[in-house]
Amino acid sequence: MKDLFYNYIENLQDTITSKLEEIDGSASFKEDIWKRPEGGGGRTRVIENGAVFEKGGVNISGVHGKLPDSMQAYFKVGDVDFFACGLSLVLHPKNPMAPTVHANWRYFEMYNKEGGIVDQWFGGGLDLTPYYLFEEDATHFHQTCKKACDAHNPDFYTTYKNRCDDYFYNSHRNEARGIGGLFFDYCKATEDINMEQWFNFVSEVGDRFLEAYVPILEKRIHLPYTPEERNWQEIRRGRYVEFNLVHDKGTLFGLKTNGRIESILMSLPPHVQWVYDHHPQPNSREEQLIRVLKNPVEWVS
Amino acid sequence: MKDLFYNYIENLQDTITSKLEEIDGSASFKEDIWKRPEGGGGRTRVIENGAVFEKGGVNISGVHGKLPDSMQAYFKVGDVDFFACGLSLVLHPKNPMAPTVHANWRYFEMYNKEGGIVDQWFGGGLDLTPYYLFEEDATHFHQTCKKACDAHNPDFYTTYKNRCDDYFYNSHRNEARGIGGLFFDYCKATEDINMEQWFNFVSEVGDRFLEAYVPILEKRIHLPYTPEERNWQEIRRGRYVEFNLVHDKGTLFGLKTNGRIESILMSLPPHVQWVYDHHPQPNSREEQLIRVLKNPVEWVS
Repeated sequence: MKDLFYNYIENLQDTITSKLEEIDGSASFKEDIWKRPEGGGGRTRVIENGAVFEKGGVNISGVHGKLPDSMQAYFKVGDVDFFACGLSLVLHPKNPMAPTVHANWRYFEMYNKEGGIVDQWFGGGLDLTPYYLFEEDATHFHQTCKKACDAHNPDFYTTYKNRCDDYFYNSHRNEARGIGGLFFDYCKATEDINMEQWFNFVSEVGDRFLEAYVPILEKRIHLPYTPEERNWQEIRRGRYVEFNLVHDKGTLFGLKTNGRIESILMSLPPHVQWVYDHHPQPNSREEQLIRVLKNPVEWVS
Repeated sequence: MKDLFYNYIENLQDTITSKLEEIDGSASFKEDIWKRPEGGGGRTRVIENGAVFEKGGVNISGVHGKLPDSMQAYFKVGDVDFFACGLSLVLHPKNPMAPTVHANWRYFEMYNKEGGIVDQWFGGGLDLTPYYLFEEDATHFHQTCKKACDAHNPDFYTTYKNRCDDYFYNSHRNEARGIGGLFFDYCKATEDINMEQWFNFVSEVGDRFLEAYVPILEKRIHLPYTPEERNWQEIRRGRYVEFNLVHDKGTLFGLKTNGRIESILMSLPPHVQWVYDHHPQPNSREEQLIRVLKNPVEWVS
């Protein structure tokens, strides 16, 4: 399974970065291959200052060895060996009418002293963070998420949509980071579903990423915008930074377990503002976004 | 003691904001008085888009009531009442040649069921975060810190200078946030020092804040700078955000105990950048700063 999935994310990284370069038309991804001293490494691909993408990263990594102490405590296990791999991406378009997107698909194994697998699971998801809300975009994104789910289990979409709303939440602001998508974790074999079926589900979600995001991007990247709309985007990007640095378990884990800092923090937006006590004008498009972030919406029935 | 100290920080806030407005010459502080539903409140003063200060806050608060659950766990005490007050300030000058400064002076009391004080202490300090290093500025700042300490105890400067270097450290970057200053906490009465003597020490540090910072500001705010130097400042401000949101206990405590978000996050810089894997040119002024941040310096003997 680990070879199957690592091979899958390698190919998916190529597919996604090729398509994004084609859309950008100006910048290309810069690749950094890195090694983890304790075992494994990764292939980080970052695009900056493009015509469409102001900053973005599409990274894969596969790491293994002794489970770090902090993760032993987190998973409540002893001194075991592990393998973990995944693809993580964050794209920050320049145009404030185009949303930021984040996605991640990952696989984890833990071993006993004899090298036998004692635990294994998938996790991941994708979610959208608009600066200006276009309802048709939110609906399209969620419909694509639902299509990926429905082929595997009729409950997955609702379950993982709700988990996404719960997880990507800036509790200190009482608002969601964005308009959600899917979030799943600890997808383990049960009586009803085996690991191959989980792989089929996770890889279908991965395969549908471009279908979920690209049509939105293509509709929004040529829209005109004002300096004030750009300021609003940079202020909202501040909320994105707050979520990633204060609440996101993956980011904090990486920072506290000596992960590759630049690959982890590629998720942070390029230009960001913090304005004291900023409130949008009543009944503005900016306020409309905040209302939706404070009250998650059912985008598809 | 609580009235004495609260009165002190009220006056200090006035002294500091008056002087800073005089230096800025263009913008003035906007005041927000706020109430805490569970008891107490504060007076937040924020300056934005000034000639000198791009953003800054000088805030006081005095809060009381039942100690929040998260703080009970943190202090390892039961369900007790508390009082806490303090002044916090962060100033982000516009000119990258002028350093950001942070300072905080605070006092804490805990009570038994009969309302008797069971514990009380002072904490605080001040520290400087330059974007371009002027050694004479760092020396002046530390000399002023030392002068404030030496009048009270010959060991205070060295002890609290080292604690400052340890505390304001971005461990995920292996570098200090800035060039330090003083950091002290849990300053409690002992055989050698009583609470009045701690008050005298803490208020002397507070009184010397303007003496430590203003001469530096006056030397740097009229220096010319390039767009590249401004970019460097914004990139370094990203490290400031990382420290405050990932490591700073005060900020995280505020965010997790339902503090007034806008007063807590006024510390975040106005314009910030994150550039993937940014490294300054060898032997540049930018690299010189990084070398000092990776190897704390003894600025005064």
